[in-house]
Amino acid sequence: MLENIRIILVETSHSGNIGSAARAMKTMGLSQLYLVSPKSVDEQTFALAAGAEDIVRDIKIVANFEQAIADCSLVIGTSARLRHLQSSLIEPRECGVKALQHSVMGTVAIVFGRERVGLTNDELLKCHYHLAIPANPEYSSLNLAMAVQLVCYEVRMAWLAAQQSSTEFALTQTDNPFPSASEMEYFFSHTEKLYQQLGFIQNQAVMQKLRRLYQRAALEKNELNILLGMLSAVEKSLKS
Amino acid sequence: MLENIRIILVETSHSGNIGSAARAMKTMGLSQLYLVSPKSVDEQTFALAAGAEDIVRDIKIVANFEQAIADCSLVIGTSARLRHLQSSLIEPRECGVKALQHSVMGTVAIVFGRERVGLTNDELLKCHYHLAIPANPEYSSLNLAMAVQLVCYEVRMAWLAAQQSSTEFALTQTDNPFPSASEMEYFFSHTEKLYQQLGFIQNQAVMQKLRRLYQRAALEKNELNILLGMLSAVEKSLKS
Repeated sequence: MLENIRIILVETSHSGNIGSAARAMKTMGLSQLYLVSPKSVDEQTFALAAGAEDIVRDIKIVANFEQAIADCSLVIGTSARLRHLQSSLIEPRECGVKALQHSVMGTVAIVFGRERVGLTNDELLKCHYHLAIPANPEYSSLNLAMAVQLVCYEVRMAWLAAQQSSTEFALTQTDNPFPSASEMEYFFSHTEKLYQQLGFIQNQAVMQKLRRLYQRAALEKNELNILLGMLSAVEKSLKS
Repeated sequence: MLENIRIILVETSHSGNIGSAARAMKTMGLSQLYLVSPKSVDEQTFALAAGAEDIVRDIKIVANFEQAIADCSLVIGTSARLRHLQSSLIEPRECGVKALQHSVMGTVAIVFGRERVGLTNDELLKCHYHLAIPANPEYSSLNLAMAVQLVCYEVRMAWLAAQQSSTEFALTQTDNPFPSASEMEYFFSHTEKLYQQLGFIQNQAVMQKLRRLYQRAALEKNELNILLGMLSAVEKSLKS
């Protein structure tokens, strides 16, 4: 459960923040930390990790966002309260519950963006949910590690609640595991190609909306198979 | 309400922690910071306060714990999970609710102890409640400012919930109205007809799964329009 929940920090500038994030994770019982192209991991990282050097030593460093989430079936990205993401926005408490529920079946990624500019639109589109911390609108700039602390705290609260009443809490095993990020990518690129060919897709706006829709729905594998089958059926009819 | 909730830091050693705590408070809308005999407030404090220098400038420094809480009618002190405090122990969530409820009537103090040794027994005895963060028992050492962040977050969550319940009956405006049931029916029957024609749908199972998927996603009108456009694009290609 907690071991299936991965924290991903994208292009972190301050190596100290990585250490503080590791410490924050460990206080809440999380341990899986991935970094996408960090500026550096150095003595400052270890200094701020305090007693969490084990997490720093186990860090996985990858070159890009896609590699960090490749084996994850639920991806939650932090973001400001962007208008176009409205329907997929969740707050930390809901994030904790969703991450925990999903962690029974697969790996969950909770992704934190760059200190100044967060995640790119392209990265946000690859997330199923978008996490916004309900901060003071006049001053909403949480330090990166503080945000990690809050989110890990809510994950732990959900976990403690689940432990306390493991029957009440809906940790339902399901027969419908979720597709991985790369399986979803295959579907999106296939859709884009086909509907470009049909003349329906002429710019990026449509694909962005479709991505948002299917990420929000947290497609199950059998549902994805149906959608792929529909694409093939259309392709077959075009050839004949 | 929020302005009646005071954060008190007792004998803080690291001046940077004071700045980080001020920043954490401001992100959650709190502003009243008292220090009991801090080692120093210096440029490190201002550096880590980032955009919360106003809170640092308004800090009240007092000589002892009693002065800091003198005008408070509810005092909550942070502590480890001490056995003899068991009956007065609360967690951050309950702390947020209690602090907020009380803040309508008087000043509330939430007190954080020294970085290494916390509050003394004597100080703890002067608190109405004792706040323990449910951290990982194998590594429970939260940074001081992280603890301030978590507690202020729960205060804000309680405050937001109070605000929301007072406007519960106001209709939520949305920019993305949802389609009516008959518009959804039109889409489903159209999909079924087309994919029967393409030989992909041969029984009810597929349509049931598609219905479940799109109902769960709570399709917006503009998303439904895209899906209808995709159906038309396929139909057009079949005719040509």
